[in-house]
Amino acid sequence: MKKQAKISNAVIKRLPRYRRYLKELRKKGVDKISSNEFSTLIGYTASQIRQDLNNFGGFGQQGYGYSVDGLYHEISAILGLDKQYKMVVVGAGNLGQAIVNHTYYYKSGFIVSAIFEVNPKLIGLRINDIEVMDYENIVEYVEENEIDIGIICTTMDAAQEVADKLCFAGVKGLWNFAPVDIETPGHVAIENVHLTDSLYSLAYHINGAQEHNKK
Amino acid sequence: MKKQAKISNAVIKRLPRYRRYLKELRKKGVDKISSNEFSTLIGYTASQIRQDLNNFGGFGQQGYGYSVDGLYHEISAILGLDKQYKMVVVGAGNLGQAIVNHTYYYKSGFIVSAIFEVNPKLIGLRINDIEVMDYENIVEYVEENEIDIGIICTTMDAAQEVADKLCFAGVKGLWNFAPVDIETPGHVAIENVHLTDSLYSLAYHINGAQEHNKK
Repeated sequence: MKKQAKISNAVIKRLPRYRRYLKELRKKGVDKISSNEFSTLIGYTASQIRQDLNNFGGFGQQGYGYSVDGLYHEISAILGLDKQYKMVVVGAGNLGQAIVNHTYYYKSGFIVSAIFEVNPKLIGLRINDIEVMDYENIVEYVEENEIDIGIICTTMDAAQEVADKLCFAGVKGLWNFAPVDIETPGHVAIENVHLTDSLYSLAYHINGAQEHNKK
Repeated sequence: MKKQAKISNAVIKRLPRYRRYLKELRKKGVDKISSNEFSTLIGYTASQIRQDLNNFGGFGQQGYGYSVDGLYHEISAILGLDKQYKMVVVGAGNLGQAIVNHTYYYKSGFIVSAIFEVNPKLIGLRINDIEVMDYENIVEYVEENEIDIGIICTTMDAAQEVADKLCFAGVKGLWNFAPVDIETPGHVAIENVHLTDSLYSLAYHINGAQEHNKK
């Protein structure tokens, strides 16, 4: 993997999207693509695309364009998708169950090893053949099984305490679905999915859409 | 509601977050807050906060700060949360079911009226007492019931066709959970929740965290 210094968060956020489009192009049997063609497809300007990909050393050749397959694999490697991640889900409610089922279809690198829950009625159940365990035992489990990622599907009130426990036990990253901003030590990565914020943005745009005709 | 011209998407994206913090402050009985105090809490700079809120005419008073309750209600109104939205979910799989259950807890303005599905085994079931209906009838239903928002929880391959149908039937906005970028006519708002993109960003940061110590 190339050295990844000083890459802005905005660029990182765009990489999965580039990868998604490249995956589709591969499926369609496309071999190479110019930054102009890619621009038409993905909606970023060609110069934005070149600038983004230059962050990683640039994979294109003047007058030839990008190799779809090459770029797909490079971006996958940059994102770390050539590795495997062990994950636990905390909270076996509706959202937790949906996430377990959802990640099940990644096939590859992201494996849910266990689900943790405080509600005794749910402990012992199996979701997609993954056991729902007692939250009491989470630290021990995460340590012993060298879990990489903790997925937080708890209530707002419990989320920070759960995060603290997961960080203490040694996870490298948190994927947070609770509607609250979680604090982590600097060495633990965090990615928040604030569903409610997203819905509220949509509400704004619905009301503004007539006025501004913007998306 | 105040005139909302030329407000950047970045500001709009921050509004639900402001609102979330203000809601917490209200719960704790806090009456007013200065931009400096708000900055410590929310993590944006005080000048950023003043600039953001100035977009809407500014609600603060020099030397007094912002009224927590006043600002909370103003932002709610700007987002359009003083209105009610009728929604349909398309796709009654795990994610669709989780979204139905999730939105159930908004109590207020966002009501799921029906769920649509192509799988005959699921049609006729009830999720949270909401009927799963035949996708065949979606256009008629959306038109007759003046549905505002369509929530897309289908596969990637079906998503654009579902979106087209919903737009044709007259929804004002789409909340898309399918892992694909959907195109809508300019008058229909769209908000994408790309869960996989979010997980891949997290993977990047986990790998980069040791090097950069950034979140």
